[in-house]
Amino acid sequence: MTEFFIQTNKREELIDITALIEEKVKGFNNGIAHIFVPHATAGITINENADPNLPVDITNFLNRLVPKGKWLHDRIDNNADSHIKASIIGNSVSIPVKEGKLQLGTWQDIFLCEFDGPRRRKIIINVIQLK
Amino acid sequence: MTEFFIQTNKREELIDITALIEEKVKGFNNGIAHIFVPHATAGITINENADPNLPVDITNFLNRLVPKGKWLHDRIDNNADSHIKASIIGNSVSIPVKEGKLQLGTWQDIFLCEFDGPRRRKIIINVIQLK
Amino acid sequence: MTEFFIQTNKREELIDITALIEEKVKGFNNGIAHIFVPHATAGITINENADPNLPVDITNFLNRLVPKGKWLHDRIDNNADSHIKASIIGNSVSIPVKEGKLQLGTWQDIFLCEFDGPRRRKIIINVIQLK
Repeated sequence: MTEFFIQTNKREELIDITALIEEKVKGFNNGIAHIFVPHATAGITINENADPNLPVDITNFLNRLVPKGKWLHDRIDNNADSHIKASIIGNSVSIPVKEGKLQLGTWQDIFLCEFDGPRRRKIIINVIQLK
Repeated sequence: MTEFFIQTNKREELIDITALIEEKVKGFNNGIAHIFVPHATAGITINENADPNLPVDITNFLNRLVPKGKWLHDRIDNNADSHIKASIIGNSVSIPVKEGKLQLGTWQDIFLCEFDGPRRRKIIINVIQLK
Repeated sequence: MTEFFIQTNKREELIDITALIEEKVKGFNNGIAHIFVPHATAGITINENADPNLPVDITNFLNRLVPKGKWLHDRIDNNADSHIKASIIGNSVSIPVKEGKLQLGTWQDIFLCEFDGPRRRKIIINVIQLK
């Protein structure tokens, strides 16, 4: 088990963490990389970063889908929208690893999804070895 | 492989199953807990339960997002909305386990998501051991 | 690690791949089947296929939820909606396997979700063996 931290900069943003994950799986041969975000107002997703507008589109889509300030939980903590987004996107991904390399497709990158930043976020990585 | 059953009480509700899962992983050292719901009208998600309004907000959000009675499948079985919600939320989560403890964040709890209750729901748990 | 290819036929459709996955896990005893789609405009979900209208409902729901042609990425490649749908649905599922059989529920089938077809799509399968 290994973990690292990412400092986010905005309330909502997608941050490409592909290179950081690639670094962590280098020592492994064949397996499944499991990447887990231990937060209830952040998520993780796999999508394209060749066009940096795409993560912005995903953020904008979610902002329109889940408006702020309309929810019961907002009376306590003004971030119900952030929690709802986390349940839509999910808080873990798992990716095949072959000869130390993530088997991502050409257009796949890994994004930490910040929904209630700026914050310092933890990411936990495990590689399940395959025989 | 171990499994247990939960009786749900409403058509839509989120039920906190964290304590039940914690109990199941106690015997394991390091691994990944895989929790699978073998149903097409229920799901599983990780989110906050410190404020019990939050699971209600998630239920309300999904009810507004996916209205009832508008879908082709409703001619056969009046629960297309339940199925669609299940595909949005997903039917499994996987969580790192360290020294017999789920590595959940401070604000993370595990919820069975009932979208077509009341029903008796099965939950299947496996722990993948890590070296 | 094993992989196979599926030719899709429409821009948006759900294709039942359950039988193909069942074939791949036959040689294994107990484990977790991990099924990964290495594409950023396709996904994978588990839902019902007993009524073939249900996958159509899911496609229609997503088409209404994520309209075409409104996004920044559409200036480069007219498929931002396809990418956004992929992040909602997710690009992997994992399913318990017992004595060579997927432990799916009665109403669960596995669907490749095409959001930007027709295309030739790759699916990567691994089975994590359990002790």
